[in-house]
Amino acid sequence: MYTTSVNDYLRQHIRTVSNWPAPGVQFRDITPLLQDPKVFRILIDAFVHRYMDVDKRPDVVAGLDARGFILGAVIAYELNVGFVPIRKKGKLPFTTVEETYELEYGSATVELHTDAVKPGDKVLLIDDLIATGGTMMAGKKLLEKLGATVMEGAAIVDLPELGGSKLLQEVGKLPLFTLVDFEGH
Amino acid sequence: MYTTSVNDYLRQHIRTVSNWPAPGVQFRDITPLLQDPKVFRILIDAFVHRYMDVDKRPDVVAGLDARGFILGAVIAYELNVGFVPIRKKGKLPFTTVEETYELEYGSATVELHTDAVKPGDKVLLIDDLIATGGTMMAGKKLLEKLGATVMEGAAIVDLPELGGSKLLQEVGKLPLFTLVDFEGH
Repeated sequence: MYTTSVNDYLRQHIRTVSNWPAPGVQFRDITPLLQDPKVFRILIDAFVHRYMDVDKRPDVVAGLDARGFILGAVIAYELNVGFVPIRKKGKLPFTTVEETYELEYGSATVELHTDAVKPGDKVLLIDDLIATGGTMMAGKKLLEKLGATVMEGAAIVDLPELGGSKLLQEVGKLPLFTLVDFEGH
Repeated sequence: MYTTSVNDYLRQHIRTVSNWPAPGVQFRDITPLLQDPKVFRILIDAFVHRYMDVDKRPDVVAGLDARGFILGAVIAYELNVGFVPIRKKGKLPFTTVEETYELEYGSATVELHTDAVKPGDKVLLIDDLIATGGTMMAGKKLLEKLGATVMEGAAIVDLPELGGSKLLQEVGKLPLFTLVDFEGH
């Protein structure tokens, strides 16, 4: 759906920060994509153009804490659908469902308000980057606990060598849409 | 600029959660404003309509971690300006400036990438709620360290009894724009 040049244009505006947050990690920093008005618009529109098609239009956009809020909120507004935040534990005040998942060291828990989606809602799940896929998988499970269907997971960046996109698609049966792949971690 | 009815309409969609996160606190939960497509649009448009005027248009929108990301990103997109996140310490990968401020118990530190704004930029600073004003004041100082001017602070909710909006305006000399006031904490 997008020409190579749009993806390359976006790729050029992702900053790689070496050895952050830990030695050996090449961190893909998406903040330069947000900061330039034209790049930001092209970024958001790449998602909006996909999901404005009638058969791709979600009922709700769910964003993962916290960079997924930046993308997800704009995409929801542009599609004229609601936005719901999936948050790290302890941040949502109303009754929630929660899901715990494993990290390299320890674990993390995410939460979703129990009234955030209705049974049968088609949800688009958004984050900035797919690494091990743990957060997105946990988000999918939360939405499914409430009876919703996650129609697709979307992110700017995929790091395929970390195996998250393969896991989400093969084990999670979640279709994915990403704009830029990077090698390595 | 807005009729009483728009503000009242938004007020009706803010959920009060009692005794969260601590006994005696009435937490003002803005997630229902985001979840309904019409309410979400009216909310965002209340800000966009104000800042689309030529003399009110910012060069950059800065959002405070994390609910300020939801509002700030959409407002920036709609105004065709860039978005920059101000984050809790340890979340931004590139070189940063930082500012520490006092909380009721202990302190918090926020950071901003050093290339997020340019000297002379007029910045609109966004959060969901103004309570003691500490986070917004710290955000303003960060932007000013980089030579930018904060033209206005904006939020959905003001809790005037906590004194933050008074502090920001009188001590911080920061004009504020908020949509809904609530009594109490």
